[in-house]
Amino acid sequence: MSVQKMILDLDTGIDDAMAIAYAVADPNVELIGILSSFGNIESDRAAQNALKILELVGAPEVPVFVGHHNPLDHDYQRIDVNSQIHGENGIGEVDLPEPAHSVSTKPGVDFLLAAARQYGDQLTVVATGPMTNLAAALEQDHATMQKIGNITIMGGALTVPGNVTPVAEANVEQDPVAANQLFTSDLNVTMVGLDVTLRTLLTKQETSQWRESTAGSNMADIVDFYIDVYADLYPELGGCSLHDPLAVGVAIDPSFVTIIAMNMMVTTEHDAYYARTIGDKARLNDPNPNVKVAVAVDKDRYLQVFMDHFKNLFH
Amino acid sequence: MSVQKMILDLDTGIDDAMAIAYAVADPNVELIGILSSFGNIESDRAAQNALKILELVGAPEVPVFVGHHNPLDHDYQRIDVNSQIHGENGIGEVDLPEPAHSVSTKPGVDFLLAAARQYGDQLTVVATGPMTNLAAALEQDHATMQKIGNITIMGGALTVPGNVTPVAEANVEQDPVAANQLFTSDLNVTMVGLDVTLRTLLTKQETSQWRESTAGSNMADIVDFYIDVYADLYPELGGCSLHDPLAVGVAIDPSFVTIIAMNMMVTTEHDAYYARTIGDKARLNDPNPNVKVAVAVDKDRYLQVFMDHFKNLFH
Repeated sequence: MSVQKMILDLDTGIDDAMAIAYAVADPNVELIGILSSFGNIESDRAAQNALKILELVGAPEVPVFVGHHNPLDHDYQRIDVNSQIHGENGIGEVDLPEPAHSVSTKPGVDFLLAAARQYGDQLTVVATGPMTNLAAALEQDHATMQKIGNITIMGGALTVPGNVTPVAEANVEQDPVAANQLFTSDLNVTMVGLDVTLRTLLTKQETSQWRESTAGSNMADIVDFYIDVYADLYPELGGCSLHDPLAVGVAIDPSFVTIIAMNMMVTTEHDAYYARTIGDKARLNDPNPNVKVAVAVDKDRYLQVFMDHFKNLFH
Repeated sequence: MSVQKMILDLDTGIDDAMAIAYAVADPNVELIGILSSFGNIESDRAAQNALKILELVGAPEVPVFVGHHNPLDHDYQRIDVNSQIHGENGIGEVDLPEPAHSVSTKPGVDFLLAAARQYGDQLTVVATGPMTNLAAALEQDHATMQKIGNITIMGGALTVPGNVTPVAEANVEQDPVAANQLFTSDLNVTMVGLDVTLRTLLTKQETSQWRESTAGSNMADIVDFYIDVYADLYPELGGCSLHDPLAVGVAIDPSFVTIIAMNMMVTTEHDAYYARTIGDKARLNDPNPNVKVAVAVDKDRYLQVFMDHFKNLFH
């Protein structure tokens, strides 16, 4: 694998924080910037959290850009369950120092498009919040977005139930219109959804191994908050899901997962099937489907790499 | 491949008729009996249709048994769309001769269990209607059902929308309780659902090749009825789906499809998600899933074998 230029598009967020750490630790990645989005928390606070986590993991030089604040067709409102899962501050109520760096003044989507123009197929974009920034960039400059080598999203649920409704996963549910625009476009997208992230779990056995350094203790405190919430909300899983860091891992090394190629769509009608990610019946027999959906995961090998990365950061 | 003993469990039905023809024509199959079920048509008429089709394809010696008449938890009622799709008589309004043979007096489920005791893992059962007979047999003698080498069903929709509701496929929707009992049991089941059958299409270009014999003309008339209905109901497909014969094909040669292993369940609550076939969240991390779901199909190779079989029958 050659080193990938990577942009993360995050609503940081505890598992987003782990996604940042994973990307910074991976020797195959050059993290060139982070865009913020809304979902786990408001876009501005997501950007601040990203700055704090970058300093925590020793990468304060990575620029952070503020992305869209609202879904394409309605206003964002943080729902209570996100405060519950990620803490009121989005990072498990851990009080990290105010970051020395500030967010960049360039709008997030402009940064994304500029990077796509500069790096083309050398660029990987991993979005682990709603797909609003991607859809907005697509609307703004379709041809440039087509140049991006790898777009991987954490979102959706194809073979398992959703986590907001029986059919809706949280990131897609934040902005189904944006997700549908991305899925029904001609961009090649890899979907890392609940199908695999609910099978990729972390426990305090693992986080306890990061506590030798102050930074590692802070990260362990953040993630332990998440693990405790998961134990309350999803006791059947036996750990917290590595949603967002798995998407980064798959973007770097797709062999972590089993892929099926599908033409996907998202239901945008406001009925019981709102925000469902499902095969697009109208394009079932199209021989060139544009979405690769991860449906199985080698969780043991992924967790090994994940832990190696985190130990390198927090020794 | 060695020759498999096969039982078909059918609500005959036009595509069930093609499933009979495929099984009779395949040199790797010894068709030892047909059970009837309800769905496309009532169970008794499904049995009569099976007798007629067996005579049409030159296999009048295969015994036909009447299976369950009703779903496990409610009464069967034929819905109008089934008359529309399969014709009032279930076989495209084609008037085949009254069969010389009669249905067997042994109850269908008793025949199934006796065959399972006799042949064990040499037995293949393909069910292309509701899973009521299978669930009833499981309830009656679990240990015997565990001996069956191969249970393949046509039913469900995992990665694509349903054909009754956005989540429900017709065979599962006939008896979701039975389907859920089968899927959540410890039996190994292969699910051939709309995921692959909607991609496996037949047109009049193919049926016209059967018209050299009277029997072939009758079969072509039956299937052309179905093709015409599909052109009305699902013009986007460009043909009729080979639902039931594909299940028979996959039971004989699984390499026609791409499989993912899942623990599946069926929603039995009477809400918008009624009869949905979906991964079972409670068993997501179970390392030994019991259902193999076909999610992609080599439709060109399958159609070639299908046409070879039909040409052998109807030359």
